Amino acid sequence: MSYSFGKNYKITVFGQSHSEEIGVVIDGINAGYKINFDLINKNLERRRPGKNKYSTSRSELDSFKIVSGEIGGITCGAPICAIIKNKDQKSRDYESLRDKPRPSHADYPAFVKYNGYNDIRGGGQFSGRMTAPMTIAGSIAEDLLSQKNIKVYSRIKSIGSAKDIDIDYSNIDFEKLCALKNDDFPTFDIDAKKNMQEEILNAKKNLDSIGGVVEIAILNMPTGIGEPLFNSMESNIASAIFSVPGVKGIEFGSGFNAANMLGSEHNDSYYIKEDKIKTKTNNHGGILGGLSTSMPIVFRVAVKPTPSIGLTQDTVSLKDKTNEKLEIKGRHDPSIVPRAAVALEMMTCVSILDLVIEGEK
Amino acid sequence: MSYSFGKNYKITVFGQSHSEEIGVVIDGINAGYKINFDLINKNLERRRPGKNKYSTSRSELDSFKIVSGEIGGITCGAPICAIIKNKDQKSRDYESLRDKPRPSHADYPAFVKYNGYNDIRGGGQFSGRMTAPMTIAGSIAEDLLSQKNIKVYSRIKSIGSAKDIDIDYSNIDFEKLCALKNDDFPTFDIDAKKNMQEEILNAKKNLDSIGGVVEIAILNMPTGIGEPLFNSMESNIASAIFSVPGVKGIEFGSGFNAANMLGSEHNDSYYIKEDKIKTKTNNHGGILGGLSTSMPIVFRVAVKPTPSIGLTQDTVSLKDKTNEKLEIKGRHDPSIVPRAAVALEMMTCVSILDLVIEGEK
Amino acid sequence: MSYSFGKNYKITVFGQSHSEEIGVVIDGINAGYKINFDLINKNLERRRPGKNKYSTSRSELDSFKIVSGEIGGITCGAPICAIIKNKDQKSRDYESLRDKPRPSHADYPAFVKYNGYNDIRGGGQFSGRMTAPMTIAGSIAEDLLSQKNIKVYSRIKSIGSAKDIDIDYSNIDFEKLCALKNDDFPTFDIDAKKNMQEEILNAKKNLDSIGGVVEIAILNMPTGIGEPLFNSMESNIASAIFSVPGVKGIEFGSGFNAANMLGSEHNDSYYIKEDKIKTKTNNHGGILGGLSTSMPIVFRVAVKPTPSIGLTQDTVSLKDKTNEKLEIKGRHDPSIVPRAAVALEMMTCVSILDLVIEGEK
Amino acid sequence: MSYSFGKNYKITVFGQSHSEEIGVVIDGINAGYKINFDLINKNLERRRPGKNKYSTSRSELDSFKIVSGEIGGITCGAPICAIIKNKDQKSRDYESLRDKPRPSHADYPAFVKYNGYNDIRGGGQFSGRMTAPMTIAGSIAEDLLSQKNIKVYSRIKSIGSAKDIDIDYSNIDFEKLCALKNDDFPTFDIDAKKNMQEEILNAKKNLDSIGGVVEIAILNMPTGIGEPLFNSMESNIASAIFSVPGVKGIEFGSGFNAANMLGSEHNDSYYIKEDKIKTKTNNHGGILGGLSTSMPIVFRVAVKPTPSIGLTQDTVSLKDKTNEKLEIKGRHDPSIVPRAAVALEMMTCVSILDLVIEGEK
Repeated sequence: MSYSFGKNYKITVFGQSHSEEIGVVIDGINAGYKINFDLINKNLERRRPGKNKYSTSRSELDSFKIVSGEIGGITCGAPICAIIKNKDQKSRDYESLRDKPRPSHADYPAFVKYNGYNDIRGGGQFSGRMTAPMTIAGSIAEDLLSQKNIKVYSRIKSIGSAKDIDIDYSNIDFEKLCALKNDDFPTFDIDAKKNMQEEILNAKKNLDSIGGVVEIAILNMPTGIGEPLFNSMESNIASAIFSVPGVKGIEFGSGFNAANMLGSEHNDSYYIKEDKIKTKTNNHGGILGGLSTSMPIVFRVAVKPTPSIGLTQDTVSLKDKTNEKLEIKGRHDPSIVPRAAVALEMMTCVSILDLVIEGEK
Repeated sequence: MSYSFGKNYKITVFGQSHSEEIGVVIDGINAGYKINFDLINKNLERRRPGKNKYSTSRSELDSFKIVSGEIGGITCGAPICAIIKNKDQKSRDYESLRDKPRPSHADYPAFVKYNGYNDIRGGGQFSGRMTAPMTIAGSIAEDLLSQKNIKVYSRIKSIGSAKDIDIDYSNIDFEKLCALKNDDFPTFDIDAKKNMQEEILNAKKNLDSIGGVVEIAILNMPTGIGEPLFNSMESNIASAIFSVPGVKGIEFGSGFNAANMLGSEHNDSYYIKEDKIKTKTNNHGGILGGLSTSMPIVFRVAVKPTPSIGLTQDTVSLKDKTNEKLEIKGRHDPSIVPRAAVALEMMTCVSILDLVIEGEK
Repeated sequence: MSYSFGKNYKITVFGQSHSEEIGVVIDGINAGYKINFDLINKNLERRRPGKNKYSTSRSELDSFKIVSGEIGGITCGAPICAIIKNKDQKSRDYESLRDKPRPSHADYPAFVKYNGYNDIRGGGQFSGRMTAPMTIAGSIAEDLLSQKNIKVYSRIKSIGSAKDIDIDYSNIDFEKLCALKNDDFPTFDIDAKKNMQEEILNAKKNLDSIGGVVEIAILNMPTGIGEPLFNSMESNIASAIFSVPGVKGIEFGSGFNAANMLGSEHNDSYYIKEDKIKTKTNNHGGILGGLSTSMPIVFRVAVKPTPSIGLTQDTVSLKDKTNEKLEIKGRHDPSIVPRAAVALEMMTCVSILDLVIEGEK
Repeated sequence: MSYSFGKNYKITVFGQSHSEEIGVVIDGINAGYKINFDLINKNLERRRPGKNKYSTSRSELDSFKIVSGEIGGITCGAPICAIIKNKDQKSRDYESLRDKPRPSHADYPAFVKYNGYNDIRGGGQFSGRMTAPMTIAGSIAEDLLSQKNIKVYSRIKSIGSAKDIDIDYSNIDFEKLCALKNDDFPTFDIDAKKNMQEEILNAKKNLDSIGGVVEIAILNMPTGIGEPLFNSMESNIASAIFSVPGVKGIEFGSGFNAANMLGSEHNDSYYIKEDKIKTKTNNHGGILGGLSTSMPIVFRVAVKPTPSIGLTQDTVSLKDKTNEKLEIKGRHDPSIVPRAAVALEMMTCVSILDLVIEGEK
């Protein structure tokens, strides 16, 4: 089913960009858990548009409400339903677009799939706005993982040609990681950050947009979580990651570089450090055979440039089968990468919590 | 569940590298389908080791038998169970390795997950041998897709630094595609093929191994197949692809290049060609919003170098927590890329057939 | 997962008796379906308490709102989320009961399962109130089935010792069936109805409650719907039926009478009538081998007497492990059978629609 | 999916009555479990036909083999696949029946569902023979439950009009329960047993068959296992029970009697006994709100008379749409109740183990 994810921590997302409400039902939280509202609000704020000049000037308030599954902020065993009311949407902007699909948006295949009945307003259920309920579910997952000392971090690895430095996550200051969570534009290197922001402003100036790469790191995952074959840790994470709009690729550890490497370079030798088993390198990215090894789990995600741009584009009329020009009005992110980073971090939390619970059985 | 995949075309794989049998149960084939034994045999032969000097000299016969779900080669509506008997395994090679995990194999996390009870022989359920039953299920899926005119092709895109040419799949000779299916080492360019093979032989000569990239193309997929969000076409394919041992990354269309692109470069403009809707470029790789667009679906998969190499490696004793040396005996593929290509193609067939059936409801 | 049901028409229910909202997410409705609000309202009204003296004097308004998945009453392919706001709940009545479980309610095992964190107010997620969102999902299913000419009817078969007449559903006036849908107390025989109502009023007078049997009939189901073994039509229906609070048993066709019968009596002979295949009797209840036969599908459901009664009862203190007396305050149904009939009819619709869609693949 | 059952202890059954093999894949057993081959063999022997004059004279050997998932009888974490080879089947008996459906068998709806391609031999996948792999999966579940001290017993409650005595399972000699497992014809009362056997022999003498009731009791289930609503303990058990061929009804605790009872009679009062919480009566059958209460879980299952009888019956020609006579050749059980009891006990084990594992998360 397309709107549910997970077996043990199961989320069901509903809503469209301009429906009356969007929200998520979460099934699988034990009774007695104290909901961390602060963390949910913080993460919603992190993904919120309209905060700075690197994202859209369109503002979403995203105040959420939990309408079931708890009493006084403590879960009672029934599923949590969290909702966000949509308001102040400018729906008139969109209806005229039904016949002229926006390039690199879902408009055309959605029109065919839904026989023209799809909700075109704001992208309907294909909208990046759907990452708001994902963020609520992800925040609760983050908090539950945190109780097991498992931590998930994201940073912007590159925007266009500007790149952040490489990091060895098995040997990093905890404070540097924490700083990522309080940074609208999380990078390790300050110069890299400036270069990336310049890339975005340049694109914006030209009514254009730009893509980038997000890197996610998972620390303190116990050894042996995940399953062989179809529920491998990579399968589950990748499946979750590709549910976030705009993702074009994912690579774990050495990733596509592995294709250029010899086995003798790529194999991560084991050694003993303070009575613990470590690997000297981490080309495997913390996962072997679909199972966590206890080394940091590291993966990178390619995010495409925002498809909505201010420049005039070529499209067609679906009805008339004629070539047409298209100008997209409205306010858009010159780069979705900073906000996508939060959504990707959140869906990572959802997907690995599911496997962690499975592993505890 | 880790050993089942799919909702409508559902496969359940069983077995370990050296168990008495390995096999697959396939649920979801309509009654009256004539099983294409030739295609199954052909694909098993394509993935078979021991055929040439670019793969291991270890030979597997892989003769399969269907023990349920059909009468006289015609499906009867009950699930198909196909089995392959394992024989002539040299299990003694392995037992000594239980305490010394092989670098970049699943040995260490599997030992922890299964409390030391895992089947270490030949890699157990983590073995590349599990791709044999996947190939049976994939071949039937390929045949069922073919009846809907949907075609899936794979080729080796690169081995080490040797790369095959780029191809526009929306404008390619059908014969070139067909040739891929009859080629042990499928590439479009003959010189690229030679360079790649040389890379493999060099690695082999040095008791080493080498990685590469496989490219998969899906042609004639109807528009609008796939689902938004969690069952996006990318989510389903990626989930299937990462179930094949050795995969480090996947990218669709422009993939990681998207991170370096402007929206104006990356957006694929629509135009009308012979009354049909096409895009001028295919950065989107045939999928938008998780749905197929009717353009060729194209993705690439990074495959790591075979972790089993003849060189002496550093490892540890799990029991004694001491540093140790390891020499892996036995015959191994200097590159698993050519054989992985078949498995990846097969799991692609399994995952997209599931979505095609879903889309027909 | 406990709060989701179905594979193709999948519902996820959320809420507790006194949570801020209760509701349901429905995934699997094609785009372009015009939501039948009248039918939903009619069915909610049928299950509503407080309508007459045979049910509780507690009134629920149950006005629902659809907050996603549609535009202007037409589905758009995204999941439907329908919510009902809870109001005017007298939550103070309940908190004192946490330590003293009400006999034949879920209080005691829920206390253990949820470590005392369960929502005791109004029965929490175990409340009959959860059948309101089931009714919304069931009404849409009923409407979708109706478009395929498949009809589902329920009637009260017995209350205490008062019984309605037996009916041959393969030979019945359509009007008599339709009348059931407009009857607060659906029976075929008017005298039986009076006797049943008298049983209820007698129980009520004595601060007691009484049980009964509901009969469901499904007409015009195509032949061959359902699956062998684990997704047999009986398995799916029974699974759905036992999700309605208060159900103690289900029997199909001859049901428990089959235990007293010879094969020669029980076997339903085939014969041809107007070129169609019929059976002379319907002991099989319209299902053989888990598949529909085209004869009316008929089953009966035993519903227990309302556990909340006005009489003083024996219970215990969970904390002190002492024997205690209990008096349950508040307004309760003297018999839940009339209202359960609607919920059972609704969950029947949900479960068979799922199989009908599966059968169409 | 129709051939898989369970979420945590997941079984996938394959095969038809006369396919080359039948079997089951079991996913969800932890590594390190020592398979209890004796128990599997004992239960297979209990369900085996041909043992005495109360069952068919047709003999099945049912020697099974485990072909994956273990080394030396110890599970290794990979799924168990257990197979039974079919042999000595008299397939010629059946082919002539394709056009003339046997009354109260699945022949007719299966013909329609599978477009005539279904395996008619021995009933195909609708055969009682499919309960052999269920028995293997159930035996392992029984053993795993037994390690948690949870016990499942079955007995024949009635055959035709002959009935066994009622039993209070919360107050019964352990030896009487154990005796059931070693009895081909398990009853508590010896006279009742004789009367039942006489009913069967009478039916057999007349080339007829007869139905009955099986009662299942589950002892020592911890409190709070099961889930509210859709995965209630009753929903899961009922779903499993109706997958066994020939079942017409199921009732828990008071069952259909509840329909005749007042709340004051039906409610089970709590009291303290030796510091434990008990109920004075067990009308609730050990389950409230879908959760186990710690009282014995008791339910009864109605089993229809064997549809295959020696008497001439009325049927039709599917092709010619004409009325026809039918004589069924071959050896058949005069009552399937004794053998069904084993299958029902086994599927009970499968379904509750799944919930027990869920409850441990």
